[in-house]
Amino acid sequence: MTRMTERRRIVRVDGGRVVERPDTLAVEEPLEIRVAGRAVSVTMRTPGHDLDLALGFLVTEGVVATPDDVVEAIACGDNVVDVTTTDAAAGRVTERRFYTSSSCGMCGKESIDAVRTRSPYDVSVDRLVVEPHVLTSLPDRLREAQRVFDRTGGLHAAGLFTAAGELLCLREDVGRHNAVDKVVGWAVQQRRLPLTGTVLQVSGRASFELVQKATLAGIPMLAAVSAPSSLAAELAAEAGMTLVGFLRGESFNVYSRPDRIAATN
Amino acid sequence: MTRMTERRRIVRVDGGRVVERPDTLAVEEPLEIRVAGRAVSVTMRTPGHDLDLALGFLVTEGVVATPDDVVEAIACGDNVVDVTTTDAAAGRVTERRFYTSSSCGMCGKESIDAVRTRSPYDVSVDRLVVEPHVLTSLPDRLREAQRVFDRTGGLHAAGLFTAAGELLCLREDVGRHNAVDKVVGWAVQQRRLPLTGTVLQVSGRASFELVQKATLAGIPMLAAVSAPSSLAAELAAEAGMTLVGFLRGESFNVYSRPDRIAATN
Repeated sequence: MTRMTERRRIVRVDGGRVVERPDTLAVEEPLEIRVAGRAVSVTMRTPGHDLDLALGFLVTEGVVATPDDVVEAIACGDNVVDVTTTDAAAGRVTERRFYTSSSCGMCGKESIDAVRTRSPYDVSVDRLVVEPHVLTSLPDRLREAQRVFDRTGGLHAAGLFTAAGELLCLREDVGRHNAVDKVVGWAVQQRRLPLTGTVLQVSGRASFELVQKATLAGIPMLAAVSAPSSLAAELAAEAGMTLVGFLRGESFNVYSRPDRIAATN
Repeated sequence: MTRMTERRRIVRVDGGRVVERPDTLAVEEPLEIRVAGRAVSVTMRTPGHDLDLALGFLVTEGVVATPDDVVEAIACGDNVVDVTTTDAAAGRVTERRFYTSSSCGMCGKESIDAVRTRSPYDVSVDRLVVEPHVLTSLPDRLREAQRVFDRTGGLHAAGLFTAAGELLCLREDVGRHNAVDKVVGWAVQQRRLPLTGTVLQVSGRASFELVQKATLAGIPMLAAVSAPSSLAAELAAEAGMTLVGFLRGESFNVYSRPDRIAATN
């Protein structure tokens, strides 16, 4: 049985006081993701919901497009998930993460084009509208739902919400991209792809990679507590996704498609 | 000329107020790292100090062990760095990141062994001792030195300090592992490897990967503002590195080798 936290003896220094005491840490362990027995990735993750992580990873990397692409997913031991897919999906493994290399390298524009080519869903047409008061409530709802957070302070969270603010799925991980993959993998198992009409709330920043993952899962709105990067904002704008950042208290920034926020119509 | 920040029109919602205004975002763009013309990695990074990033990456992945392994490093265009190494170093590229795969996958113990096998330096014998008041001053020093931080809120920082708290090198990036690689690459160019007697202060959490990078650069102390993971603490203990976490105000936790903190002797 794998655990999400681990106890460890530490030395705590507070001003002049020095005490030895136990501390709780978030567990980080490698997970090998295989397709038909062949390793396609080793990712450092917090154990728990490993099938979700493996399936979500394959969706957000453009290998699995629909639940029907997955024949079987099984955990072998503590740190391996083996996924059997259709031949069509297995054929997409070789293209995975192998960016086109040209004499001048690749640029942000090409990264965006690569995501658009691989994505089976068009989030730009999603008719989601969210009230600002619902949006500003999401970080607290996410935090409250994070059972583990208070014990370690070391886990990122991703929460999938409806337009009304109902929590559909919460996942945590030492890696924020893994937390998002776990949510997407939950959706695969629930046969809910694409995730039309949902908001994905994340505890940290919004990178290009997180917007990419949301795009490939068909999520029309990504909200982050902290800053997005330039390329995250560009990809969101190109894909027609609503990207929200600095969601704190009663305020937030909208970097793309503000028409999905009720107050700004 | 690549920039570290970019302006973008956004919609700001604050309570009932909605305004459109410009915002400054941290730039994220792909960098292709080549060894002798062959791509070995594409990483999303904030432009700036690209040679540092490429050289540091090759050190912390176990390809480059000393500055003498590097024959030449040149930027080709905005998003490519090509590094020419000795044949011995180039031979280590193929082993890079290809974890041994066994029938049960790999576990944390094997991840730690892999780092220890690749590391040319032994940080356990480093005689560094740091006063607690120096340690608790580092997060503020790092923050003050982060010119870009106040404008975007989106950049991670890594700062290399002496035992007396003198800042040797500060680097920033949207990816915290990149910020650390940039610091290590600076040390390669300064011919300062291994980084004996130094403290690496990072703005976020301490993952296994960050402890790995510090180990391969010969850094005896890693201090993080937030939590370490279980495997970060285990690797630090195995390598004989001092790992400090939750460094806030006057207090901090020491997860391994507390003998390097003056107060705890």
